[in-house]
Amino acid sequence: MEFYMPTKVYHEKDAVLNHASEIAAIGKKALIVTGKSSSKKNGSLADVKKALEENGTEYIVFNEIEENPSIATVMKAAEIGRSQGTDFVIGVGGGSPMDASKAIALMIYNRDSSEEVLYQKIDLKALPVVEVPTTCGTGSEVTPYAILTRDDKKTKQSISHKIYPVIACVDAKYLMNAPKSVIVNTAIDALGHFIESYFNKRATDYSCMLCQYGMSVWAENLDVLLGEDITEERCNSLLLASTLAGMAITHTGTSIPHGMSYYLTYNMNIPHGKAVGMFLPGYLKLMSKQFEDEVAMILEGLGFANIEQFAFFIKQCMEVCELSKTDKQNILNEIMENPGKMASIPFEVSESDVREVVEFMGK
Amino acid sequence: MEFYMPTKVYHEKDAVLNHASEIAAIGKKALIVTGKSSSKKNGSLADVKKALEENGTEYIVFNEIEENPSIATVMKAAEIGRSQGTDFVIGVGGGSPMDASKAIALMIYNRDSSEEVLYQKIDLKALPVVEVPTTCGTGSEVTPYAILTRDDKKTKQSISHKIYPVIACVDAKYLMNAPKSVIVNTAIDALGHFIESYFNKRATDYSCMLCQYGMSVWAENLDVLLGEDITEERCNSLLLASTLAGMAITHTGTSIPHGMSYYLTYNMNIPHGKAVGMFLPGYLKLMSKQFEDEVAMILEGLGFANIEQFAFFIKQCMEVCELSKTDKQNILNEIMENPGKMASIPFEVSESDVREVVEFMGK
Repeated sequence: MEFYMPTKVYHEKDAVLNHASEIAAIGKKALIVTGKSSSKKNGSLADVKKALEENGTEYIVFNEIEENPSIATVMKAAEIGRSQGTDFVIGVGGGSPMDASKAIALMIYNRDSSEEVLYQKIDLKALPVVEVPTTCGTGSEVTPYAILTRDDKKTKQSISHKIYPVIACVDAKYLMNAPKSVIVNTAIDALGHFIESYFNKRATDYSCMLCQYGMSVWAENLDVLLGEDITEERCNSLLLASTLAGMAITHTGTSIPHGMSYYLTYNMNIPHGKAVGMFLPGYLKLMSKQFEDEVAMILEGLGFANIEQFAFFIKQCMEVCELSKTDKQNILNEIMENPGKMASIPFEVSESDVREVVEFMGK
Repeated sequence: MEFYMPTKVYHEKDAVLNHASEIAAIGKKALIVTGKSSSKKNGSLADVKKALEENGTEYIVFNEIEENPSIATVMKAAEIGRSQGTDFVIGVGGGSPMDASKAIALMIYNRDSSEEVLYQKIDLKALPVVEVPTTCGTGSEVTPYAILTRDDKKTKQSISHKIYPVIACVDAKYLMNAPKSVIVNTAIDALGHFIESYFNKRATDYSCMLCQYGMSVWAENLDVLLGEDITEERCNSLLLASTLAGMAITHTGTSIPHGMSYYLTYNMNIPHGKAVGMFLPGYLKLMSKQFEDEVAMILEGLGFANIEQFAFFIKQCMEVCELSKTDKQNILNEIMENPGKMASIPFEVSESDVREVVEFMGK
């Protein structure tokens, strides 16, 4: 087994400002990669700018990252980064800007390459990347993954290159005023990372440690997901869980709930965490066929008596959508043709086993 | 809080050979740093040589590292490494060669510096270091520490520079035929790392996670420490615990049992793990003054009903030596003048509290 997690994580209040000189010293000119508005509202963008300004490091801001970022947007940002002579990248926001920042760092470094290299299995380097998460689900601040929308394949997929951020600055204050739906959806994404990493063919002692501890942290926040007001302590707890989950999937990858979610997001525009959550009860049900005791232990640790209670919780904290027969069949077809995700299932399964995962929440 | 653990860990059978090309590609000429004989006997040195030879990477072997390595030995090895043009270092063995290899890598890189820089608080780089542990205690394969004997201060102390190994190859086969006393002493050292990291002012969620999971792994091996025959599975388990403990103290440092142990090792030549073990029951007793429930939980997780039973276990698995009044007083004086170790205690303590830690095992 392998353990590799080279990202330096600063999880503290004012992490960006406290470590400003270290961040600013990474290069001479930063490309800050973010979305349209939330990083302005929650103060993260201002902190990053201040950190760079205080240390005399130049920067430009690219704020056009959309949810589920496209390759076109990545290439547009990379073109600007290339022409402006940026030598490191800072991703600020949720999974979309953080994932995009890695792909952009790759495309700036490989300045003569075109977008085809994103999904080529060759060994390419990237500019150094710093990540500043403002949601509590993706864990992208510590993963080497960069998931982009592939219109050519009508789905989402991580690029072929592993780009580990050099620094992650995790600060609860950016999450405090996030919309409730964002907190819930991203927290469910993190839970998906734990469940899919724990029950995974590639699971190791290291990934199981991260999942076990991380789920106990995550479970402290059930009441927030069901409507209680968020506090700074809870933001810290949700962010810690999210980072730990990111470290776990760094070692195992995700499994079929994530693989199935991409269809819903690509075709029905369902937010990522919600799309993942729809398949988690079914995945646990499938896992219980081989790992009954472990599924029961995980559910107990999370605060649920059984899978049905867990499924009810998912429905309680987010609106689960109805899937048509066609959608279900399409999801099944797509996942059955995804060898990477299918290989992550820790035992032999049939197509009808997988169908049950798709259908569980519909029942 | 911070998490930083950049070492790539390969924990598997034949780790050195499986990752030979990656190791060999680190440089053009390796300095292999090891002790007199055990790395020859257990096969680790042969594997490292083979890995380099197969990939056409040159090497020289320095096999003069003694237990509790001296600065003179480090400088002798560094001089050879400098004159022979070595550009990376591979430490093979227990804590002594692994710790020494980091200091040697520092002194080769800073070729015009003299030994004074080892303990100067300045920012110095080192050659890349690979570690191949053959005992199950130090965790040096993942820590940035390099503890050397300081004759000028009549004690042991880590150098001032943090040198994280780039790769650690953990392979149970090297431990299989180690002397029983080495397995016991080093396993008790690892337990000390867990206990002193868990009950530590610098403890974080990350370090606590490593300790909690790691202690549950460690506790699987109580019977081996009490005389049962070792198996490959147990070697893997003890090595995993040791690496996890190393990751934990990387984030917190150790506490007063380690600080107290140096006197016994320097003055009475008591092996490191045994010297640490003598103060662990007393440290838990001290911790129970503030953290009664947590101490009880930790003891239960380790398989002990109370501190007395734990102290009995320590006596059972290794011969605890009698300390004279003078020795006890000297140990107390030395630790009270060690601000780093004293600051690691998670609450205010008096001199008489610390005296009880020294005296507990003598009673």
